[in-house]
Parts: sequence; C-alpha cells; structure tokens
Amino acid sequence: MSAAAHDSLKGKRVVALCGGVGGAKLAFGLARKLGSDLTVVVNTGDDFEHLGLQICPDIDTVLYTLSGLANRVLGWGRADESWNFMEALADLGGEKWFNLGDRDLALHVERTHLLRAGMTLTEFTARAAQRFGIKSRILPMCDDAVRTVLETSIGVLPFQRYFVEYRCGPRVEKIFFYGADSAAASPAVLSELQNTELAAIVICPSNPYLSVDPILATPGIRQALENTPVPVVAVSPIIGGKAVKGPTAKIMEELGIEVTSSAIADHYSGLIDGLVVDAADAGDANSIDIPVHAVPTLMSSDEDRERLAGDVLDFAMRLVASGSQRQARAS
Amino acid sequence: MSAAAHDSLKGKRVVALCGGVGGAKLAFGLARKLGSDLTVVVNTGDDFEHLGLQICPDIDTVLYTLSGLANRVLGWGRADESWNFMEALADLGGEKWFNLGDRDLALHVERTHLLRAGMTLTEFTARAAQRFGIKSRILPMCDDAVRTVLETSIGVLPFQRYFVEYRCGPRVEKIFFYGADSAAASPAVLSELQNTELAAIVICPSNPYLSVDPILATPGIRQALENTPVPVVAVSPIIGGKAVKGPTAKIMEELGIEVTSSAIADHYSGLIDGLVVDAADAGDANSIDIPVHAVPTLMSSDEDRERLAGDVLDFAMRLVASGSQRQARAS
Repeated sequence: MSAAAHDSLKGKRVVALCGGVGGAKLAFGLARKLGSDLTVVVNTGDDFEHLGLQICPDIDTVLYTLSGLANRVLGWGRADESWNFMEALADLGGEKWFNLGDRDLALHVERTHLLRAGMTLTEFTARAAQRFGIKSRILPMCDDAVRTVLETSIGVLPFQRYFVEYRCGPRVEKIFFYGADSAAASPAVLSELQNTELAAIVICPSNPYLSVDPILATPGIRQALENTPVPVVAVSPIIGGKAVKGPTAKIMEELGIEVTSSAIADHYSGLIDGLVVDAADAGDANSIDIPVHAVPTLMSSDEDRERLAGDVLDFAMRLVASGSQRQARAS
Repeated sequence: MSAAAHDSLKGKRVVALCGGVGGAKLAFGLARKLGSDLTVVVNTGDDFEHLGLQICPDIDTVLYTLSGLANRVLGWGRADESWNFMEALADLGGEKWFNLGDRDLALHVERTHLLRAGMTLTEFTARAAQRFGIKSRILPMCDDAVRTVLETSIGVLPFQRYFVEYRCGPRVEKIFFYGADSAAASPAVLSELQNTELAAIVICPSNPYLSVDPILATPGIRQALENTPVPVVAVSPIIGGKAVKGPTAKIMEELGIEVTSSAIADHYSGLIDGLVVDAADAGDANSIDIPVHAVPTLMSSDEDRERLAGDVLDFAMRLVASGSQRQARAS
C-alpha cells in the first residue's frame, strides 16, 4: 500500500463483501493491512441445515482463513483435520455427501446450539471470530434466511446440493435468492456501510452470481452501495478469460455471458467506481468505461494476498483523489 | 450354561433390563449365549440434551458393548476414539464438562437428526443396532421423556450433571423420575415382556436406584414383571459389601440402606424370584427369603461375562423346574 493510501485510510474503516474461498483470500490480505479497521460482510446464501446442524460455508471459510486455521491443501475446512465423525456416520448409514471434519464440527454444533438458544448469527459469528483471535469484524450479510437456489438442467437445486453433491455439473438456467424479499440486512451491516468513518468498499473476487449477488440482493445493501460517497472497488474473479477456481466461468457461459472482466464490470454497473482486473486481461479491459487497475490477481501465497489488498486499497484511494468515484456511479 | 437350561431356552426369548456399564457387561454375555433370542430393555432416564444433541448414555453403552466397539480402557464411549471435536469446542468456549468423542458424535448427531425428522427412539436404536451388526434386540424402555433427577445436598440436579459434572460428589437425598407418570413403556417393550415365548427376565447388575428403577417406574413395566409367569432373576451389583464401580454403594449409604445383597433383594421384593449374589457375599445371603445363587459376579473378561450369563440362565431355568418362581412373587 502506498504511503498516500496509508495516510488516507488512517483511522478510517473499510468494508469488504465476500463469498467463500477466493474472496476470503483477499479478505485475509485486507485484514493483514487493516486489522480492526476492516469489516468483512459475508454471503450467507449458501447456508443450509444438514443433519440438523446449521452450516454456514462462507462464514466458516472466512473465519478459518482470517484466523490461519484454513486447510490450504483441501481449499476448504480446517487444517490438521480428522474425519472420524464422517467414518462413524457412514457406518451408521448417515448422509455422506457433505464432509464434516471432526474439528470443523465444533463450529456447527455450537452455532446450532446457540442459535436455537436465541443468539443471532451476527452475535455467534462475532463470538467465534473473537475466540479465533480475529481482529477484523466479520458480519453475516443478514440474520434472516436468504437461500441461493438454482434452476438447473436437472431441476431446482439448493446451492450446496448443486455445488457439493452435484459438483456444479448441471447446467445453470437461473439463480434465485429465496427469502431475500422479506429479509433485512443486519443492522450491523447497514451501520458499517453508512459509517461516517468509512473510506472504501471492496467487492472481493468471489463468484459475482453465486456469492456476491446474494449479498446485493439483501434489502438495503445494494442501495447503500449506490448511495455511499466512498469509492466502491471490485476485484474481477477472471484471470486470462478463465475463473481461477469454482464454477464462475462455467456459469457465465451457461447464462450466455462472455467470460471477461468487461462482463464483470457490466454486472456491477452502477455499483462500482473501479475494477481491478488481472494483468493478463489488461487488453480486454479497454472497453470498460470505469477506471480499471490491472495487476496480478492470482493469490498463491500470503504475500500475494497482502500485495493485492494493498493494490486494491491504493486504487480506491486514487479514485477518491481524482474525484472519479461519484462520476462512475452517477453515469 | 447347562444342557438342561439350553434345552429349556431353545426357541424361547429372554428379556434383560439394563442400565449402563455394569449391566451392559452381563447383557454382552447374555447376547453371546442367546443372540437374536435376547431383548435388552435399556434405561433412558439418563438421557439428556447437550449442545442441542440427544444423548442416550445407557443405550449407547449397550450398543457399543454388544457390538464390540466399547472403549474398555475408559469404561465408556468407543474404542479407537479421537477428541478433536472437544478440543475445537473448547477453543470456541463451548461446554466441556461432558466429553463427546469424534466417532461417538456420529451417533448423537444422526439420532438427533432422525428423531427430529419423526423417527422414534425405538426405531433409531433398532437401526443403529442393525448397522452395528448386533443380533439381539435393543429397546429403550420408552420413547417418551422420563428423566432421572436427584435431590442432593447442593440442590436438584439432572442425572448427568450429578454423575459427570459433579462426579457423584453431592449427597443424594431423593431420586425422582420426572415424566414417568405420563410416560408409557414402548409397545415393543410391553410386547416382549408379554411374549408367549418368553422364558426368563433378567435384571442386570446395574445401579438399582439410578438405572433399574427408572425402567420399573415406566408405566406397564413393573406390572408386567409382577404378572409374568416366567422367572425374574436379578444379579446383585454388590461384591463383598461394595459396588464394583459407580455410586451404588455411596447412594445406598446416603439413603440409609445397608450395602448388602440382602438390601438389593429387599429392593426388588415382589418382583424377583431369585437373586444371583457374588460368592463373597454368600454368607450375607442367608437372610434372603428367595432362592439365591452365589457365584463369582465380577466380569473382567468376555469369558467372565459369558460364564455369569450362563450361571444366571441356569439359575432361572432351575427356578422354573422347581416351580419356585411364582411362590416368591406371590409371597
């Protein structure tokens, strides 16, 4: 991060919108740079009840990634994990399509228990983050149930069945966020987005359709992004015309969208003031009519994550300096 | 088992009433002798909800013991167990007074899940027994909630808090079985107790006050024992004036009861036709006014369990042969 950006951010807050794995990597970088000045608003559209347990895959990925507990080999779950529960569950004839590690299970059991006792998901997540030694604030997008459901070539599938059980195989025809109409963003999220100390909003390189859209569909959040005076910067999940991981590119093709960063800019049109694209896509970015910052966006190491976080914050602060953040969204 | 007893039991059924560890050992021996001809009716007074999970300590002990999965070193839970869930739960600040092994957890999660889906505890227990390869029938005493609660020197304690959290420390003043008034023994239990093929009923050497009394307090069961034409034989949990394990002797003292097998005979008076006592207590047994069979009752090995099971069945069949089973209860 540049000295100028560092000064601009001093005592200020930054909000990052984030889904699972890819987004959490940037959130990790931002957390390293910003510590307690960062709030990560996390998608809960993937949440589901499994074996009677309340599972929140994206929140858990963010908790594990920011606390350093994440399993970097698997790309999900906890490091140093054991699988004796799953083995015993299989012996009992229980459902085995969704893997739950022995350590990971503690989070699901304790969360289910405390939510049933009346705690909100926001409260439980704050408690878990604190126990894990995370300084940044981690907020579920809302405490109500908003559920990502896909209309696919084999029928309507809740997100986790599509993603885990069917491994993103079926063709996606339409994506719904059930409950979004009657849900409300949590007061904590809206208050962070309207915080007078807010300096920037970052949309992490999560899947725009599956991970970020549920956040934007939660009443109050899209409007807060439209109305904020601070720069909103997205990081494109596309690298060299492909998605790094997960079904982003496949879904874009199925929905008839070109797999380019320019399509990502279109998707966030009216919401963002600038787009960070991968250096490999700098050429493609010429057609984008908002400021673009082309840098390496692949995050293989902690250093990559921190460097990209710094680049994103620099870019956002330069948008402020040039006064271009309001123009873009007003256009 | 004698050839005569073997012949008498051919094609017949035996019911054993059983609590946790000590009782399960005899149930194991009986299961080895009788296989699918044995039904074990298990205490559910110790059941409780913990972390939102339905825990059935005695049923699980019987399932693990009869399937050979029990942890013989700990004396509870499963062999080859790991504790990563508990470690992660403690990190999260969760309740840690009740240990749940990673493998053991599968039974609690799956049971809670399926009970909530509408399965009865009887159905789930049968399913688990079948998955574990157990040939004998294992029946919870009832599907309703009957809960053992103790009035103690430090106040009213649900059983598990007394037993596990307070390690049986507080002085017991009174024992209640909440819910017993409005509960009903399961139809499966009553049908086994009234089965025309029934040859004997065995009360295992479980704690009479904490483990067997809840079974007897479940409406229909005591009456079935009083009315059955078959011999009812109990095995005393007292060896040489002491209890092998657990709080039996301590509770007897606190309740002002002599720690003798003769007190056990009194406790089951009107219900049993004969008492098996340890060889060490043969002298004390002279004052008992029903037939007594004195044999070694300490079960350290599988062979001990089988031998005692054979002795108990022999004794029951001899009571039939001598016609003394009805006299005792009629007296």
